[in-house]
Amino acid sequence: MDIEYQNGLVPVVVQDYNTLEVLMVAWADDEAVRLTMETGYAHYYSRSRKKIWKKGEESGHIQRVHQIRTDCDADTLLYLVSQSGAACHMGYRSCFFRTIEGEVLLDRIVDPKKVYNNTNE
Amino acid sequence: MDIEYQNGLVPVVVQDYNTLEVLMVAWADDEAVRLTMETGYAHYYSRSRKKIWKKGEESGHIQRVHQIRTDCDADTLLYLVSQSGAACHMGYRSCFFRTIEGEVLLDRIVDPKKVYNNTNE
Repeated sequence: MDIEYQNGLVPVVVQDYNTLEVLMVAWADDEAVRLTMETGYAHYYSRSRKKIWKKGEESGHIQRVHQIRTDCDADTLLYLVSQSGAACHMGYRSCFFRTIEGEVLLDRIVDPKKVYNNTNE
Repeated sequence: MDIEYQNGLVPVVVQDYNTLEVLMVAWADDEAVRLTMETGYAHYYSRSRKKIWKKGEESGHIQRVHQIRTDCDADTLLYLVSQSGAACHMGYRSCFFRTIEGEVLLDRIVDPKKVYNNTNE
């Protein structure tokens, strides 16, 4: 499939392959997608750091990618992954741990201070 | 929660409340989010048509919203919905019906010609 990148990037929804939980949303460029397909581990593009990153490169919380899907317009990707540890840099299994009203739905499973030198991931 | 809109918009991941299937990704502005919360039905902002739309306004394939979650950075939303019919304008239950290699994973459940006057939705 030809991916429709916008300004060189495509949003990636990341879903747990086993539980189907939506873990996070990140961005990828074509190089990050290529690295993900070649290595089988999720890579993204950081818009703030302006570089490709491998999920878990600092925290060890890597994502083994089982399948990559595109949507009908081929302008969004879905990574189905096995997540090690916490997807969220705040220590929660999923970044979507709160309702829009602010209610926290999940327990923190990791102390972020113990796995990150900074909280940029 | 204060939502971090970028250029007035936020990406919305839409997940089936019952099956946990990821159905689609769309965009919302603050007015679409407000309408979604007030009515209980998913509203989005169309970047191509430059206007708010209610999912299913043409097709009847509405989305009853059970919960809205934000991610850690509050710059992405997750709508948990009960989907009537097909989320995808191409007649599939989910827009993510293909792998990146082009393999079709789902059956078409609706003939799009029968529910849309055009295929803009």
